[in-house]
Amino acid sequence: MDGINHELLAPLESEFAEIAWGIPKSGEKHAPIWIARPKVTDSAVKFEMLYCGICHSDVHTGVNDWGPCNFPFVGGHELLGRVVEIGSKVTKFKVGDNVGVGCFIDACLKCVNCLKGDEQYCLEGMTGTYNGEKKHGRCGGNQETRTAGGYSGSHTVHEDFVLKIPDGMDLEKTAPILCAGITMYSPLMHWGAGSGEKKTVGIVGIGGLGTMGIKLAKALGNDVMAISSSAHKEALAKEKGATMFACSKDPESMKANAGKCDLILNTVSASHDINTYLPLLSKGGATCVQLGGVTSPHTVHQFGLMMNRMSIAGSLIGGIKETQDVIDLCFKHGIYPDCTVVEAKDIDSCWDKLTKTNADGIRYVIDIKKSLENKDYIPN
Amino acid sequence: MDGINHELLAPLESEFAEIAWGIPKSGEKHAPIWIARPKVTDSAVKFEMLYCGICHSDVHTGVNDWGPCNFPFVGGHELLGRVVEIGSKVTKFKVGDNVGVGCFIDACLKCVNCLKGDEQYCLEGMTGTYNGEKKHGRCGGNQETRTAGGYSGSHTVHEDFVLKIPDGMDLEKTAPILCAGITMYSPLMHWGAGSGEKKTVGIVGIGGLGTMGIKLAKALGNDVMAISSSAHKEALAKEKGATMFACSKDPESMKANAGKCDLILNTVSASHDINTYLPLLSKGGATCVQLGGVTSPHTVHQFGLMMNRMSIAGSLIGGIKETQDVIDLCFKHGIYPDCTVVEAKDIDSCWDKLTKTNADGIRYVIDIKKSLENKDYIPN
Repeated sequence: MDGINHELLAPLESEFAEIAWGIPKSGEKHAPIWIARPKVTDSAVKFEMLYCGICHSDVHTGVNDWGPCNFPFVGGHELLGRVVEIGSKVTKFKVGDNVGVGCFIDACLKCVNCLKGDEQYCLEGMTGTYNGEKKHGRCGGNQETRTAGGYSGSHTVHEDFVLKIPDGMDLEKTAPILCAGITMYSPLMHWGAGSGEKKTVGIVGIGGLGTMGIKLAKALGNDVMAISSSAHKEALAKEKGATMFACSKDPESMKANAGKCDLILNTVSASHDINTYLPLLSKGGATCVQLGGVTSPHTVHQFGLMMNRMSIAGSLIGGIKETQDVIDLCFKHGIYPDCTVVEAKDIDSCWDKLTKTNADGIRYVIDIKKSLENKDYIPN
Repeated sequence: MDGINHELLAPLESEFAEIAWGIPKSGEKHAPIWIARPKVTDSAVKFEMLYCGICHSDVHTGVNDWGPCNFPFVGGHELLGRVVEIGSKVTKFKVGDNVGVGCFIDACLKCVNCLKGDEQYCLEGMTGTYNGEKKHGRCGGNQETRTAGGYSGSHTVHEDFVLKIPDGMDLEKTAPILCAGITMYSPLMHWGAGSGEKKTVGIVGIGGLGTMGIKLAKALGNDVMAISSSAHKEALAKEKGATMFACSKDPESMKANAGKCDLILNTVSASHDINTYLPLLSKGGATCVQLGGVTSPHTVHQFGLMMNRMSIAGSLIGGIKETQDVIDLCFKHGIYPDCTVVEAKDIDSCWDKLTKTNADGIRYVIDIKKSLENKDYIPN
């Protein structure tokens, strides 16, 4: 599939030029480019970027896996920075605060889902942090262009979509909580694994999402079963907090663990057979939540669903309040993703590694300050 | 697929011979036959059969649609009768009580699901009212034979699996509540449409299950959208209590009703594309519950589930307490299925009609007393 190439426009009056690392045209590799960011007005918060996570979704979007992407494309929806300027109407933040921005930067804030705090399911459609349509009026700058993500020197975002990062948090490792963390936390809460009643939660896929899932499910008081096609992931999974392990390629292991999980969070984003995991669900009301961006359809057998009152569901990140909750929970329990800090010049090689398989559950995080010091890899 | 033929055994000491209408050998039509029923002991309740519903599941089972069935086969899992004898340990019933028996007559009563009242999801497997394995010890009689259903002159069942039919209920129309009623009631309750908070419930398929679903969803305080491939079902559905109608073959109608349903109960048991109905679900946490015994697998797209936090689930009848609840609710609100009373000699033609399509939402009910009077259609 091919993307949609646009001209790189000069900043408007309401914008300024900012350094970013993006893909200039569909099919190309990353390069340092100038982009236009909105100037601060009213309720906007400007922050210098300190760190930005590299998410597998950035890759899928930027290589047009999920439909034609708009180029130039700047990825990154795990933004971590420090406030440098605020608009006159900002009430929640002050200069010097550490802040985060996750997967979206605007939504209608009027529909039933936005009013419930589920902005990710905005009936008008949320505006993604990258490749998003500016249609709700809070993005600033040129409304005709798509949003550009966090692989960049700064961003300016409406305060309603900015998260507070508690003082004392390990900033280098916090960025991925804004996507990987909330992606696992939201379904745990929605499907009752944060209610105080201990459940057995299965986590399929022991990569960047999966290891966060293990840590969060455990912190919420549950027993955790790690589920992987690779038997050698058992040690890693148990180190992260799992107490049970099922190897999906080992029929004996699957049989021994059958019917044990009250909830399964399935992070696999490669094409796979969901029926592999369903026998691990308990009979009578359990759910398998699909979290990876799988494009090939699943084959689902109705009798299995009926005989066991089983559900197959999907879930997408989480709302602003819930994202703040998971940040605060991570701070309280000292939960962080396993991060490898890289520079902007490494983005393409990180994308390659994520495309292969993330064998060690590592989230890559760009050190933006260090990247800006590399005079060979900033735009002219 | 072929069924499993067994010899028709003479009654043991613990049994007596009873009239039934069953299929002697796989592939044959119905005929009057003698079967062995258990004599009354301990906690058993014997009732003369007054009415027995004919369910589409009887047909699927008896023609080996759902796997090889055991023959001789006697269908019927909507039994309505009057107690004629009770065991010495029976505490819940007395001679003369009107009683019902639904889709199962035994379960382990020890597992976590049985203890919750979800005997239909018994971890040891419930014993179905017909073609069921007698493995939990409460069925009486010859433990080597399969259970025989309600197309018969009487039955003897452990009191824990017998339902009370309130005095004053219209007995002729009550039998199908024991399957069609509970099949719709249980998912309404499980997925929150009986919580008092008004929801919009979609009912797909305006047949015997669907019309009961409309009446029950309405009685529980919800708005009901009937969904059918046949535009001419609108009048019938609205007469039963639906206030909205979506024709699944009319793109305009589907578009106008998109996103409106908080819950869909899908009663279609023919092979179908579930993706037809999903756009009617509201975004952010709605569920489509599959209730028909569809054998061909469904194709499910993960992005649709994720973007909308949608669930696809299955549900199977309901537990004993819940079945009593739906009987009592139906009595209170005067809710009955639309029944056509037939005789045992009509079973084959009713099966034919159910196999074609139940265009008018009728449940067929055998008048057992009248059937017994037909001396040409009882066994010698």
